[in-house]
Amino acid sequence: MGGDFGPEVVIAGAAKALERHPDVTFVLFGLKEDCEPHLQKYPKLRERSVFHECELAVGMDEKPSQALRRGRYVSTMWRAIEAVKRDEADVAVSAGNTGALMAMAKFCLRTMAHVERPAIAGIWPTLKGESIVLDIGATIGADAQQLMDFALMGGAMARALFETDRPTVGLLNVGVEEVKGLEEVKEAGRLIREANLPTIAYHGFVEGDDIGKGTVDVVVTEGFTGNIALKTAEGTARQISQLLRDAMSRTFLAKMGYLLAKGAFDLLREKMDPRKVNGGVFLGLNGIVIKSHGSTDPEGFAAAIDVGYDMARNRLTEKIAEDLRIYHARHQPPAGPEAA
Amino acid sequence: MGGDFGPEVVIAGAAKALERHPDVTFVLFGLKEDCEPHLQKYPKLRERSVFHECELAVGMDEKPSQALRRGRYVSTMWRAIEAVKRDEADVAVSAGNTGALMAMAKFCLRTMAHVERPAIAGIWPTLKGESIVLDIGATIGADAQQLMDFALMGGAMARALFETDRPTVGLLNVGVEEVKGLEEVKEAGRLIREANLPTIAYHGFVEGDDIGKGTVDVVVTEGFTGNIALKTAEGTARQISQLLRDAMSRTFLAKMGYLLAKGAFDLLREKMDPRKVNGGVFLGLNGIVIKSHGSTDPEGFAAAIDVGYDMARNRLTEKIAEDLRIYHARHQPPAGPEAA
Repeated sequence: MGGDFGPEVVIAGAAKALERHPDVTFVLFGLKEDCEPHLQKYPKLRERSVFHECELAVGMDEKPSQALRRGRYVSTMWRAIEAVKRDEADVAVSAGNTGALMAMAKFCLRTMAHVERPAIAGIWPTLKGESIVLDIGATIGADAQQLMDFALMGGAMARALFETDRPTVGLLNVGVEEVKGLEEVKEAGRLIREANLPTIAYHGFVEGDDIGKGTVDVVVTEGFTGNIALKTAEGTARQISQLLRDAMSRTFLAKMGYLLAKGAFDLLREKMDPRKVNGGVFLGLNGIVIKSHGSTDPEGFAAAIDVGYDMARNRLTEKIAEDLRIYHARHQPPAGPEAA
Repeated sequence: MGGDFGPEVVIAGAAKALERHPDVTFVLFGLKEDCEPHLQKYPKLRERSVFHECELAVGMDEKPSQALRRGRYVSTMWRAIEAVKRDEADVAVSAGNTGALMAMAKFCLRTMAHVERPAIAGIWPTLKGESIVLDIGATIGADAQQLMDFALMGGAMARALFETDRPTVGLLNVGVEEVKGLEEVKEAGRLIREANLPTIAYHGFVEGDDIGKGTVDVVVTEGFTGNIALKTAEGTARQISQLLRDAMSRTFLAKMGYLLAKGAFDLLREKMDPRKVNGGVFLGLNGIVIKSHGSTDPEGFAAAIDVGYDMARNRLTEKIAEDLRIYHARHQPPAGPEAA
């Protein structure tokens, strides 16, 4: 039901994802009168899905606490998450209210053993392909141990999504000389290095411009900085594409040139298409929940389902649990940064 | 002496700036044998400048403490800053070691009354023109009062640089629902709003993508986030231009199109030219110091001088001091965020 356009986009997106992955089945939760007309348009999807009528949908502007109070047990959002908990679904995908989705996911699925706080991981297009950046906005601040957990969880996600057994991991930091970096980031660097894990290759610190370069497979940071980095990059990409559009429509020659080079522009657009990397993955919970951009179109929502599909097939939750178990069995709970 | 290319770029940049601002005079500090050959190439600059031979130049890799120990009183960097202190120069511009420059500037010029910590302000190209972002890396973290000071100082810089008497100011924050934002950012918002200053129009919170949109004239944040936002935006811009270059050289049609639209591409390149907005301005000290990118070319270094020229003509230091005086005369020192 969620997102700026509701079932129209969600159902069309599911239909698109089904074309790409004919082995998927869908468990849909919605208000009947809103979903029925759209479902009728996609007979194949209808055949491969079960529709559960719900009595309530969480609003996009509801506060998490309010959504939880009103929508627990009964809302479409809750029931989609609950389907994961009950093993009726491998992954829940929603374009709805992010705060409500995180609050309900935490409440319903609970955090994994050893994980204090969940993170939201984003997939970032880079010059080399794609990287994972986390946390992009689940919570503000993170101590060294939480950053270590993010590194483990991001590493497991990279192993599930990319063709690598030992993804490279970097800690986002500043390179300005006189600034020595955040204490907790330095401490996290020490923890990751000392853990010397077989599942991740620790690269060291990376700076903001390393994200787009694709210097590492996984960029680890806390939610405030991660969210601002993500939005700043999105803003810069939009700004350049706007300037490019303006420049290309300015003169006759430019317009002609644009027409000739249209294939190249399309290629660029495809490479930077934010829809292709749509989907923030909630990590650290006992189940996979994917948040699609609320403003996305069917192609973008299908991309969020694709991410969920890859995660489920590659048993992401089990991979994370396993990595955490190995790490924590080998390591005493370390002292906080204050004690260092 | 500083920067990746030393006097060659600095002196050529000064010559370029002199062409644009024939009323400028230069006070140059350098090692004679390194500067002399370059100075000879620019007789006009030579005529409008005084050269002070120094015995020592700070290395690009020296730690700030080391540079300060070795280079205080005697290095080219120190003496350039000292010229500002002694009123022999209105502004010091350097492409040298950022950490050393900040350490020496703090030590030599001292922070202004009421200012606890200096900030580095950057000029950011936006869809609407330019905005000021601070702090982009002077120090990590800032409490509410320091963010309030940054707002005042950035506002004064906007009044000096842009055509406005009451620039709009936004506090960088995250918009994700469940994350309520950093405590100190919320508290700073309250402080700025309550101050109700005649010199700045407080806009409220802004997100990462608002920077490129040009939503406000001044974006206020602490140094860690500011530095990462800046580098992430630079990285994204480079990434897109790389992809665009690749796409445009891929097929014959694309190459033809590129040639026809070359004027448009040049226009875009000019709008996004990082050299044009080269120069981090140290705010909050008793004098203006500008840090140019170390890797810049003469055009970029001249742009840093241009920024300094505008600042000096518009009496930035006096404006900041005046704004701070007015604010602090009207307000009790507020309680820290813990007490709120």
